[in-house]
Amino acid sequence: MEVTVMKNILGENDRIAAENQALFKEKNVYVLNLMGSPGAGKTSLLEKTMERIKDKVRMAVIEGDLFTSKDAERIEKHGVPVIQINTAGGCHLDAPMVQKTAVKLDLDNLDLLIVENVGNLVCPAEFAVGEDDKGVVLSITEGDDKPMKYPLIFKESAVAVLNKVDLVPFCNFNLQSAEEDIDTLHPGMDVIEVSCTKDAGLDAWCDWLLARVRAKQGK
Amino acid sequence: MEVTVMKNILGENDRIAAENQALFKEKNVYVLNLMGSPGAGKTSLLEKTMERIKDKVRMAVIEGDLFTSKDAERIEKHGVPVIQINTAGGCHLDAPMVQKTAVKLDLDNLDLLIVENVGNLVCPAEFAVGEDDKGVVLSITEGDDKPMKYPLIFKESAVAVLNKVDLVPFCNFNLQSAEEDIDTLHPGMDVIEVSCTKDAGLDAWCDWLLARVRAKQGK
Repeated sequence: MEVTVMKNILGENDRIAAENQALFKEKNVYVLNLMGSPGAGKTSLLEKTMERIKDKVRMAVIEGDLFTSKDAERIEKHGVPVIQINTAGGCHLDAPMVQKTAVKLDLDNLDLLIVENVGNLVCPAEFAVGEDDKGVVLSITEGDDKPMKYPLIFKESAVAVLNKVDLVPFCNFNLQSAEEDIDTLHPGMDVIEVSCTKDAGLDAWCDWLLARVRAKQGK
Repeated sequence: MEVTVMKNILGENDRIAAENQALFKEKNVYVLNLMGSPGAGKTSLLEKTMERIKDKVRMAVIEGDLFTSKDAERIEKHGVPVIQINTAGGCHLDAPMVQKTAVKLDLDNLDLLIVENVGNLVCPAEFAVGEDDKGVVLSITEGDDKPMKYPLIFKESAVAVLNKVDLVPFCNFNLQSAEEDIDTLHPGMDVIEVSCTKDAGLDAWCDWLLARVRAKQGK
């Protein structure tokens, strides 16, 4: 019973996600669905990304959060258009939420839309929102066992950003083992090490992102 | 439609949770439902807890995980009975899962059962499993904005364990502000600062836990 309902919900979600994808294709907007645990550093990564590329591409952000607009306020300071979705306790964004929100953006004048999902390493990976790519941010403080423990989000994502690598000396995190596990789960997946607080690795991340935008736009 | 289904699922869960609670009361076992994000340090906290109190109380652990038995293997090394629940991708433990598992334990010879939930700061808080108390582990590396962003889990929990406080000097985490937010969400809630890697604060945590066991058992 519960399984059947879940399949119906996912089926309906996929239908709307396909509509979103068609809209984003028509408008020539590259969409990244950015996921990760609470505190992995998704918003910090976005702040550093905007600093670097907001003058190179026309970008906007959709912020998913349970109740607050704390993250959207952080984005807004950078002068990038941002719309908050509050899920009212819901554990992920879904395609209908993004559909209702995306139409409020000036999609005709946009190259890049980043959707920051609710902080959760499980549920968001199950719901497409119409994105071109999913990306996962993993803080090294979460432990190097996390890829194997939460495999779906790594299998679904085109890129894994390992954040807070400046804390490796203080944590029991084996970068090599984590990256091997990620490659086992999703062979050939892009993995980028960054530290948002120490401003490290961010150019590589922005290069990755800009290359994806260009690839979609055929430039 | 989705909302109605969710209410039915929660209603059925609450019914089984009440059955579990009655069983644990009859057997005089105190049950803690331990929750937190991936990598908050729930299993590390359990390891340190077992080291300290496994000779003082008869304890067992139920380990929730999506697919692996990595955490259960860590618990087993301490000679404490442990049973793994794999949710096959599910984002939380529910009362029926715990019911099927608890009967496999020797409840007549148990004082304390700790249920380590799936790493997730959202969904587990919505599903009672028959516990006496919920507890939340928050790693300070997740950021001091997390209580206000994930309020339900703090409102539902009897205790918040702030882990990895040894990393405060390297992170932008304001302990006072986080603890004030927790107190706003859940006035009078117990908050305990620990560092599992530095062996700090763990006696206070174990004292809290043993006091709860004794209170239930009327000792």
